[in-house]
Amino acid sequence: MSACNERIARDVSTAALTYTVTGRGVGSVATEIQAGKHRFLVDEPSALAGDDAAPSPVEYALGALVSCQVIVFRLYAQSLGLTIDEIEITAEGDLDARKLFGIDESGRAGFHDVRVKVDIDGPNTVEEYENLRRVVDAHCPVLDIFSNPVPTSGSLA
Amino acid sequence: MSACNERIARDVSTAALTYTVTGRGVGSVATEIQAGKHRFLVDEPSALAGDDAAPSPVEYALGALVSCQVIVFRLYAQSLGLTIDEIEITAEGDLDARKLFGIDESGRAGFHDVRVKVDIDGPNTVEEYENLRRVVDAHCPVLDIFSNPVPTSGSLA
Repeated sequence: MSACNERIARDVSTAALTYTVTGRGVGSVATEIQAGKHRFLVDEPSALAGDDAAPSPVEYALGALVSCQVIVFRLYAQSLGLTIDEIEITAEGDLDARKLFGIDESGRAGFHDVRVKVDIDGPNTVEEYENLRRVVDAHCPVLDIFSNPVPTSGSLA
Repeated sequence: MSACNERIARDVSTAALTYTVTGRGVGSVATEIQAGKHRFLVDEPSALAGDDAAPSPVEYALGALVSCQVIVFRLYAQSLGLTIDEIEITAEGDLDARKLFGIDESGRAGFHDVRVKVDIDGPNTVEEYENLRRVVDAHCPVLDIFSNPVPTSGSLA
């Protein structure tokens, strides 16, 4: 990714990115998502009235977090001169569905706790990978979206 | 989804959900995600050193937001007695990649602004759908993840 880094350093305007994603309700509770040339389906398990044909929204949110961490670990390993032979990351998120369903309005609707476990195979020391983890967490876009408020506005078309 | 609602009201312990998602680095910058029985691929466009074989992490994050909004609109339309014939939601997110690449440490890594546009076809009034939108935004799990800090901890295995 150092080519990107050099390109952005030369022309900071290329660093300003706007991502657009559109979803359309289909089936009982599913959504078909279009993101550029890519499509994917989102559904719910049968316990939440879906057909379990695809991951659920909160699983995609965790998948976004995990994949962003994987990419940023590989990016900063390279820039710090560390080696990652294999990397596997697991995220667990705890959610209380009572807020979603309006049964108890006191809690929050989203995850109230998320734990990210990073498993790296490679020749460097635990201290070096711990230092890498701190650098990654300071630069990971989706971790920032989870950890800090994102100004979000909604409107009817 | 009212069956879920009744089930959770009967037994609040079923409302405590833990979601687990695992990702493994593959290819140049891609990640293979496993979420329960479902799998999906995450990649980057060629401009960010990927093979553009799948959406990127931040596109999945927006897709999670859009699909969660679609589901919660349909859920609360039903519970408020409104009708949604068709629903399409678009989310745009602005991101400055200079933080990700460590070129400028002053900004944030994730989205600094997200706009959600909701397009509903149906027989109810704009005021009714605006009221629905406010109820949805108060109960949508992924909007909460975007809007409010999620306590997130990381550790090396």
